[in-house]
Amino acid sequence: MRMVDIITKKRDGGVLTNEEIAFFVKGYVDGKIPDYQVSALLMAILFKGMTNEEIVTLTDLMEHSGDVMDLKCIEGVKVDKHSTGGVGDKTSIALGPMVAACGAKLAKMSGRGLGHTGGTLDKLESIPGMQVFVSEEHFINQVNKIGLAIIGQTGTLVPADKKLYALRDVTGTVESTPLIASSVMSKKLASGSDCILLDVKFGNGAFMKNAKSAEELAKIMCAIGNSLGRDTRAVLTDMEQPLGLAVGNALEIKEAIATLNGKGPKDFTDLCLRSGAIMLEQAKIAKSEEEGIEMLKRVIADGSALGKLKDMVREQGGDVSYIEHPEKFELSKHIVDVKAAKDGYVKRIVALEIGESAMRLGAGRETFDDVIDMSAGIVLNKKVGDKVKKGETLCTVHTNKEEFSQILKDIENSFVIVDEFVEVPPTVHAYIH
Amino acid sequence: MRMVDIITKKRDGGVLTNEEIAFFVKGYVDGKIPDYQVSALLMAILFKGMTNEEIVTLTDLMEHSGDVMDLKCIEGVKVDKHSTGGVGDKTSIALGPMVAACGAKLAKMSGRGLGHTGGTLDKLESIPGMQVFVSEEHFINQVNKIGLAIIGQTGTLVPADKKLYALRDVTGTVESTPLIASSVMSKKLASGSDCILLDVKFGNGAFMKNAKSAEELAKIMCAIGNSLGRDTRAVLTDMEQPLGLAVGNALEIKEAIATLNGKGPKDFTDLCLRSGAIMLEQAKIAKSEEEGIEMLKRVIADGSALGKLKDMVREQGGDVSYIEHPEKFELSKHIVDVKAAKDGYVKRIVALEIGESAMRLGAGRETFDDVIDMSAGIVLNKKVGDKVKKGETLCTVHTNKEEFSQILKDIENSFVIVDEFVEVPPTVHAYIH
Repeated sequence: MRMVDIITKKRDGGVLTNEEIAFFVKGYVDGKIPDYQVSALLMAILFKGMTNEEIVTLTDLMEHSGDVMDLKCIEGVKVDKHSTGGVGDKTSIALGPMVAACGAKLAKMSGRGLGHTGGTLDKLESIPGMQVFVSEEHFINQVNKIGLAIIGQTGTLVPADKKLYALRDVTGTVESTPLIASSVMSKKLASGSDCILLDVKFGNGAFMKNAKSAEELAKIMCAIGNSLGRDTRAVLTDMEQPLGLAVGNALEIKEAIATLNGKGPKDFTDLCLRSGAIMLEQAKIAKSEEEGIEMLKRVIADGSALGKLKDMVREQGGDVSYIEHPEKFELSKHIVDVKAAKDGYVKRIVALEIGESAMRLGAGRETFDDVIDMSAGIVLNKKVGDKVKKGETLCTVHTNKEEFSQILKDIENSFVIVDEFVEVPPTVHAYIH
Repeated sequence: MRMVDIITKKRDGGVLTNEEIAFFVKGYVDGKIPDYQVSALLMAILFKGMTNEEIVTLTDLMEHSGDVMDLKCIEGVKVDKHSTGGVGDKTSIALGPMVAACGAKLAKMSGRGLGHTGGTLDKLESIPGMQVFVSEEHFINQVNKIGLAIIGQTGTLVPADKKLYALRDVTGTVESTPLIASSVMSKKLASGSDCILLDVKFGNGAFMKNAKSAEELAKIMCAIGNSLGRDTRAVLTDMEQPLGLAVGNALEIKEAIATLNGKGPKDFTDLCLRSGAIMLEQAKIAKSEEEGIEMLKRVIADGSALGKLKDMVREQGGDVSYIEHPEKFELSKHIVDVKAAKDGYVKRIVALEIGESAMRLGAGRETFDDVIDMSAGIVLNKKVGDKVKKGETLCTVHTNKEEFSQILKDIENSFVIVDEFVEVPPTVHAYIH
């Protein structure tokens, strides 16, 4: 078997056999097939696609390219969730404690942020002392003890994805549905949970720019997970505007705490309740979405969800007093309001612009080497559909940078205010099973 | 400027600027841009194509990526020809002496064969003593003295093409019209001739499988050459069946000699006369195709064309007695006839199969490291359109291999004999200017 024949077969629209996919994945991980052949194949896949069967095979091989987590010694149903990424997406940090408080086991591995999207690990690290890299033993023991852990991926999981992702990033082959689906799912499968809920976002601030491509990705990922023996479901959610109000690491942690105190933004709370209800159904803890939502509302009301977040922070070395007193989080040197220039209704808040502006304020990385300013970011005061008066605050900007006048202008321009009434858009658009 | 942005621009169907193309070509030659990004771009080009302007820019940059030949000190109009390759294509070896005998200057650099296609250099090397690698000074002096030299490309010409071609070969990106056109033309332009005649072959034994794609390639190559100041024309010629009768290195040299003696196969002689006439028009030696053909027929009849081949062989260290007495060429140990199994007319002789069979008999290379058996090959006794009787010889197989029964079967199967009358197909299908 020769790699060049596999490339030309895919280039000409052929369907690769299991043996051909194995030849390429194993050969690449072993260093026998060079980057330049793999990048040519990835570009051919981007143009010609893959069948569901090819994608399942690819994912399975990637999952088993390194170690896989064995969560058998954790009692109960292990649920996992994954978001395809967006602006202001602190869902796991509120949702994890909520479902754990209801009795599900969440053993979750997360990633860092890059570009306009934030990363759960970065957000957690804004809590002083919080450790996101712990041993596998610690991880399993923690989930057994308190039902919840969110950590960074261990080095030996899915080496095929690490190599492939790094290559895709520099060869223009990131935006391929089969490659995105296999990358996400190989990591989720290797993480070992029984059930997976995928939050597939679409809109200008997401990977997938429209509902159609998001739905296609969600369906493929569910097909992969279910084919490979995991109960996999998905929600399609809006990323035209940022999720919730806060964008920025410590700012988002505070919003997650507020949500666990029952005082979160409506759209974000709604997403947590609806996603959490599906996870409780998957874990066979709730019999219906309605029952799940009731259970989740109860653990917010009685403080047990917030208690789970405190437990997790404590177990991972973080300072719990910040969860109890979020006013302790250090604030940026400059906190500036962006005001509305006219009366009207908010028609759009361009999530991509808000995410990039937050990054430029210090909240994110342009390259992996950049250092994050945990206090920086943007807190919205208005969301799409809100009525606004001239001079009213649209959002508040937090930064330690000294020169940010252009960023303020860009943030102002990312709000589109119109005269006509604007309906509040739904956050969750569809469920995929 | 970042290479990944250039890749994604082309991937999404964009037109690259001159600066972007220069960034990639220079960066690749300098080793600043890695293979894996270039192969991804090449695959994107294969799918999305390039405009003529992009192709001209790419070719110009490739041509000037290393040294270019300066043929100014050769008097007269320098003409060059290039064939896109096929089976039995010994054209340059007969045509070069013919046009040189008429007064044109042919300073030609040729290549080696690979796979089912032979290479002019390999064929020339079947003449004992013949040197195809000579100094630039020798090359220029020889053309000045006798009007003719056919040598191997010098190492410092078009390094961009060397790197790109090696990468294309292993990444499934050979079959891209813009990449084929820029590769061929950058080498022809760097070789320094004033006029270029392209022989673009199509059919199962050629790179281009049909007339349409061959015409497209020919038009692009002519546009490149003419844009960059060279009189460039093309002939579209048949490669459904082998050209002439002989396939194999010494066998083809003997056929070229026979042709210069006025005893060549009809299709091959016709191709030489018609291509040569165009070259004489380009060199302003003949005023019309008819006049050119007359001049060429004259230099065959008076022996001066054959004299030019002898001159070239002598100047390049070869043993001229082999040209005078072609029976001196050593024959293979086994010379076996393939007979017709039935009466009828020859409908097809699959050039690809004949070429691959000749390679397996020892006449060609599967990989660059293989050693060629100069005596091996196939001599057709029948061509498409010929009437054939059961038991008559279709072709004769020459080989030093001991086991070749399967090859004989494959050769027999590459002849399709039908009951109905078959017209002799034209060799030259069209002229492109």
